[in-house]
Amino acid sequence: MKQARYGRRGPVPQELIEAVPFEAPPLAAGQVLVEVLAAPINPSDLLTLTGDYGILPPLPAVGGNEGVGRVAQVGRDVADLAVGQTVLLPIGSGTWATHLVADARALMPLPDGADPKQLSMLTVNPPTARLLLSEFVDLEPGAWVIQNAANSAVGGYLVQLAKARGLHTVNVVRRQSALASVLAFGGDLTLVDGDDLAARVREITDGATIALGIDAVGGPATERLAQALSPGGTIVTYGAMSGEPCTVSPASLIFRGISLRGFWLAQWFKTASPQTRAALFGELVTLIATDRLHAQIQATYGIDQIREAVAAASMGERSGKIVLLPNGE
Amino acid sequence: MKQARYGRRGPVPQELIEAVPFEAPPLAAGQVLVEVLAAPINPSDLLTLTGDYGILPPLPAVGGNEGVGRVAQVGRDVADLAVGQTVLLPIGSGTWATHLVADARALMPLPDGADPKQLSMLTVNPPTARLLLSEFVDLEPGAWVIQNAANSAVGGYLVQLAKARGLHTVNVVRRQSALASVLAFGGDLTLVDGDDLAARVREITDGATIALGIDAVGGPATERLAQALSPGGTIVTYGAMSGEPCTVSPASLIFRGISLRGFWLAQWFKTASPQTRAALFGELVTLIATDRLHAQIQATYGIDQIREAVAAASMGERSGKIVLLPNGE
Repeated sequence: MKQARYGRRGPVPQELIEAVPFEAPPLAAGQVLVEVLAAPINPSDLLTLTGDYGILPPLPAVGGNEGVGRVAQVGRDVADLAVGQTVLLPIGSGTWATHLVADARALMPLPDGADPKQLSMLTVNPPTARLLLSEFVDLEPGAWVIQNAANSAVGGYLVQLAKARGLHTVNVVRRQSALASVLAFGGDLTLVDGDDLAARVREITDGATIALGIDAVGGPATERLAQALSPGGTIVTYGAMSGEPCTVSPASLIFRGISLRGFWLAQWFKTASPQTRAALFGELVTLIATDRLHAQIQATYGIDQIREAVAAASMGERSGKIVLLPNGE
Repeated sequence: MKQARYGRRGPVPQELIEAVPFEAPPLAAGQVLVEVLAAPINPSDLLTLTGDYGILPPLPAVGGNEGVGRVAQVGRDVADLAVGQTVLLPIGSGTWATHLVADARALMPLPDGADPKQLSMLTVNPPTARLLLSEFVDLEPGAWVIQNAANSAVGGYLVQLAKARGLHTVNVVRRQSALASVLAFGGDLTLVDGDDLAARVREITDGATIALGIDAVGGPATERLAQALSPGGTIVTYGAMSGEPCTVSPASLIFRGISLRGFWLAQWFKTASPQTRAALFGELVTLIATDRLHAQIQATYGIDQIREAVAAASMGERSGKIVLLPNGE
């Protein structure tokens, strides 16, 4: 058994982490041993390594916030899970490992036969995309939404989930080469960011009302989204790929009534009821298991290649997610 | 009769405007001739001259958005106003003039005996301050509010109106010399802006919850307010004295749940019912007429000194409002 562990935080995440052998403790009552099938590397995982995330675990820590596994061994007093069952790992459980021990009640059983790599990305990005569409502005079918970083993993999920809800998307990317992947997910309109974004958006949407803008870039890109929104529109920020603070002009805020808000999934998890969470995950599992919701994967890595995997995930120009397969294909 | 007129917009407002003689047209039915007693120069008036405001009148135009006057002559079919009555001039009526013609129904009668200079500032800044306190966050008596540009006219009104509502204010200014005037209005706490603002605010308020921040500066000052707010707090921007866009870090937006919104009185006037507007002005007139709400005045000018007056109003470091007395004291 191995786990990818780090003992300090710093600016270059791949230098901090390494795969080390460990022994799982004996199972207590209600616990199970899980063999990890797949676990992605998310931007929030990298920010946790650099120390820039909103919650930081005590050190030393095992990397990885989400993933799927298969029950390998069952402790006393576990009635609902059998060996071989595919399960969703609890958020924040240190999933970059060949094995981990978890409370049986914290594991959500998943349908057999679905691609574990796609299921392993269920907990973080799909709910983010889904809640960005539903929690800030009431959108009727036919309404338009604009997002930047549209070729990111959340961006791709958002395109698919918007389509499923009857919404139209304007998808902004930073380079021409990223347009194709967004169209492949079913994005209605795509364009490359630039100073005249608002004018081009009005032209290609024929002046449609756009009440919701989704920002994962920050810096002047936030103001460009603000200008592309209709008066009274709302921008929701969930990431900061530019590394710069969000800037919005007083004219957009005051004269055009644009609002700027933020979304953090961890905060939503804290306040949503168990029923609401279960309903959301049920919806998303069904979509992923039936292949109506998926993400591009650039490459997979074994647990011993954790440093290469983290380095690859840190690169700005990727064509998809980096996913660990700690026990191989 | 004279009015301060401009025929083009440009970067230096005092070069654009001059006092020119005019003849008032004969009064139509329902109209009155008003002698203007006092009219302030607001930042929004200067932005209208430079072309940076959210609504711009057709050119040529007479400057000035608000003021008070005295009825000098009454046309046919005017039942409710007599010569000599003090009245509030309609917003946007070109108040930088010795006289103007207005529909009698657009004039709000004001109590006699109050200082016309203080009453002349009724329409723009006091409602802005009052609505900033009431329209965005529900605040119970005892709650804290933080504002920057606290020594501005709106800032001074806000301190007084907050006190009247049982709210506490943390008042941020950009220079030490501005602290005294804020304390004189009854501000609870004052401090000079700086990078460690949030830490100093937590210290002097003993960690009190601060759910509302009022921003009239923009640039990095907006983020400093964001950091001083409690999680989930709201910043409302109504001005941009720095001339820079508002910047807020993704960490404040995402991890601390801070929202950024804008307030524009002109938009509020468009959507509020006549009853709501009347109730608001009734409240404010009473406070001003009984000297419980007032603004500092730095200097007064006659109509022939309009260029000096506009130049004085354009200076960043003022000790109070610039007010025109078009017909002298």
